[in-house]
Amino acid sequence: MGRYVCYVFLFIFLITSLSDGYAQSRKYEEEAFFIREIYDEALTNGQAYEWLRSLTKDIGARLGGSPQAAAAVEYGRQMLDTLGLDSVYLQSCMVPHWERGDKELVRIVNSFKMGSVDLDALSLGNSMGTGPRGLTAPVIEVQGLEELEALGREKVAGKIVFFNRAMDPTQINTFAAYGGAVDQRGLGASRASKLGAVGALVRSMTNGIDDVPHTGGMYYEDGVVPIPGIAISTMDANLLSDMLKEEEVRVYMRNTSRMLSPKESFNVIGEIKGSTHPEEIILVGGHLDSWDVGEGAHDDGAGCVQAMEVLRLLKKLNYQPQRTIRCVLFMNEENGLAGGRAYQLASDANEEYHMAAIESDRGGFTPRGFTADGDESVFTKKFKKVNKWLPLLEPYGLRLSKGGSGADINGLKSQKGLLFGFEPDSQRYFDYHHTAADVLEVVNKRELDAGAAAMATLVYLLDKFGLD
Amino acid sequence: MGRYVCYVFLFIFLITSLSDGYAQSRKYEEEAFFIREIYDEALTNGQAYEWLRSLTKDIGARLGGSPQAAAAVEYGRQMLDTLGLDSVYLQSCMVPHWERGDKELVRIVNSFKMGSVDLDALSLGNSMGTGPRGLTAPVIEVQGLEELEALGREKVAGKIVFFNRAMDPTQINTFAAYGGAVDQRGLGASRASKLGAVGALVRSMTNGIDDVPHTGGMYYEDGVVPIPGIAISTMDANLLSDMLKEEEVRVYMRNTSRMLSPKESFNVIGEIKGSTHPEEIILVGGHLDSWDVGEGAHDDGAGCVQAMEVLRLLKKLNYQPQRTIRCVLFMNEENGLAGGRAYQLASDANEEYHMAAIESDRGGFTPRGFTADGDESVFTKKFKKVNKWLPLLEPYGLRLSKGGSGADINGLKSQKGLLFGFEPDSQRYFDYHHTAADVLEVVNKRELDAGAAAMATLVYLLDKFGLD
Repeated sequence: MGRYVCYVFLFIFLITSLSDGYAQSRKYEEEAFFIREIYDEALTNGQAYEWLRSLTKDIGARLGGSPQAAAAVEYGRQMLDTLGLDSVYLQSCMVPHWERGDKELVRIVNSFKMGSVDLDALSLGNSMGTGPRGLTAPVIEVQGLEELEALGREKVAGKIVFFNRAMDPTQINTFAAYGGAVDQRGLGASRASKLGAVGALVRSMTNGIDDVPHTGGMYYEDGVVPIPGIAISTMDANLLSDMLKEEEVRVYMRNTSRMLSPKESFNVIGEIKGSTHPEEIILVGGHLDSWDVGEGAHDDGAGCVQAMEVLRLLKKLNYQPQRTIRCVLFMNEENGLAGGRAYQLASDANEEYHMAAIESDRGGFTPRGFTADGDESVFTKKFKKVNKWLPLLEPYGLRLSKGGSGADINGLKSQKGLLFGFEPDSQRYFDYHHTAADVLEVVNKRELDAGAAAMATLVYLLDKFGLD
Repeated sequence: MGRYVCYVFLFIFLITSLSDGYAQSRKYEEEAFFIREIYDEALTNGQAYEWLRSLTKDIGARLGGSPQAAAAVEYGRQMLDTLGLDSVYLQSCMVPHWERGDKELVRIVNSFKMGSVDLDALSLGNSMGTGPRGLTAPVIEVQGLEELEALGREKVAGKIVFFNRAMDPTQINTFAAYGGAVDQRGLGASRASKLGAVGALVRSMTNGIDDVPHTGGMYYEDGVVPIPGIAISTMDANLLSDMLKEEEVRVYMRNTSRMLSPKESFNVIGEIKGSTHPEEIILVGGHLDSWDVGEGAHDDGAGCVQAMEVLRLLKKLNYQPQRTIRCVLFMNEENGLAGGRAYQLASDANEEYHMAAIESDRGGFTPRGFTADGDESVFTKKFKKVNKWLPLLEPYGLRLSKGGSGADINGLKSQKGLLFGFEPDSQRYFDYHHTAADVLEVVNKRELDAGAAAMATLVYLLDKFGLD
């Protein structure tokens, strides 16, 4: 009898294993069909690229507080309004208003070997200006904040500190390399000022060796005397570093950047109300603002038009969601997250529940999948559920992994849903990020469309199956 | 007792399952470390891009039989000669020698609505010329070879046949879409001629809607009267198609393309002799020739410099292979496979055994993995073995799937090894393929380097573990 039970157990085990794949493929037949429809529509009639063309070519760079940011808000509202959604509205937030001023100048002066050399430079966002006369000081190179601290006030006071730690080229995920270097940009000037420095130069955040300077946010810690912070291209960072090995180098730097008073701006929101679970929200978003150079095409025009396209695709395919699908175009991600914060405050006050949120803010490149994040009390169980859908995602080259979601939605973790970051291929992102080179022409229409389809697919599955 | 046996069975089953992952991760520790070294070297000191710069900028387009193809042979030989290999040599082959002649002209003449319009055009490879006076005829549009046959001689004779079936944009793999449309380019003119047509126009092979015409190979079947075949851009194909809906359209086409007598050219080969199994060959290759427009950067300069980089990486890391690693830069893939055929003839005559061969001929884009192919008598078993290495490949974003390998190595299947095609992301490939836009600037250095590292990784694993 015991042996009989054992055989029965074995038999059931084997049958279960063998039939699993078959049952699964049958089980998801309907879903696979609808996902194929999503991709067909996106790759055949995708609207994302045309919207991006307007955002980049008609409006252009749109730093929070700028007239272009206001134009982008109105454009986003009007476009969402064409989609036949249940509601489209603006959500107010106050954003910092920083201006770059005149073209910045960073000049190596009176080098013994090379005479005077102008470097490719961009003021960092929120940097104060040197004033119109500029400043000149000897340069001291460090590889990061720790080395700066080790040098101490005696060696730093009166100098321009040059932060030259490169992004690590051996990281396959370029965002990991960015994360390992960007503290120099964010806090370099502030920390240098604490030790009496008069200015900061920062190696551009890119794996490339080129003449393109990269701007991006920097911040002064409380009580710090604000000194100017300017990024220089990686080629010029290498040049400057080489010269410093041979002689004392003095640099003249001039920028007329300034902080103006905060301005009102807006998140742009459009939603389809859920039929049976309207209280469960699935957010899909990107950020509408960009830095003030280039056209903010990959960062993050791409994410905005992809989020809009998700709603267009679902409407076009006559999909009536059970849950509320909400597209949010956030304002001011680049320079303080004012939009993301305002959104979260309102959402928490209204006791909303974001069952899931997906942000696209890593460029409009070819889709590789999604990273997922969430409160640790719920993450494992919910992520396991999502992983069951992998057979539906893999035919489209999509994978799932643990990892950050997006700056604008990160705070929603407290609502204990699941947060996703859309994950396009990252190899080229830092060729363009925060530069004059981030223009429509470096976004590929098919890659952009496929990304929108990937996001719509995940939204659809989340709505179809829920997470609870 | 029976129940006891059952528990023991269950216990063993569970222990085996649980320890599997752990044992596997320990088992591959050494290999994981070496693969990390391959990537570190490729992403930090990769040479592929500098080689590609010479191949594209100093030499340029290099159609079989051209002086540039000869220069590429000599350049490949010299560069392989710098790597400290055991042997570097040339292998002779006879290649067709076709010349484009003067800039081709395709003009819609005397349209009622638009007057005369010049279309963006490129003669297809091997097309005969119209002669200097050109020809004028009414145009008839078809969606492919089948529709042409259905029309029959009566409707086709004396006309220019316009093949306008687009690549299917809903195919995620763009090569599948290419495969579904390219018969029009290869055989359109030949089939049209059989029905008495005087010329053929072919919609360019691309998913994009742009003004860039794509050339590529066409062939006359035996006994066919050769008529000229010219590709037009997708924008102009759409224009022509729209005009044909409203009125009869006559086109003037002129090209002075011609076939010259065959020339001698060469495959370029470099190898590291295996220490313990020199008779088992692992080939890694690309093709040195390109079409005669642009710079042949993605197609297939990228594949050549990646194959060269594989050998450089292994030498640089002091890896002594057990098996023979052979880099082959094939001649004349684009226009008849003369190099691939000569290689196979010699290999078979010498009774060689290619345990594995990897070709990179799908562009230098971000790596997604490898497709694998082989004689059906051995494929399943060998592919299963390779799939055991997936845990070592997945951290680098690489997957394995069944699929074609490469045109130059396909015939080696008869030696019953495993054939691989390096699989980069395919979304952008047909933006550049066979066009003036396939230049160095559209190749990303990191993507190219990562591809070489992926290929070196597979070569290393094949050498380390073998397939038999």
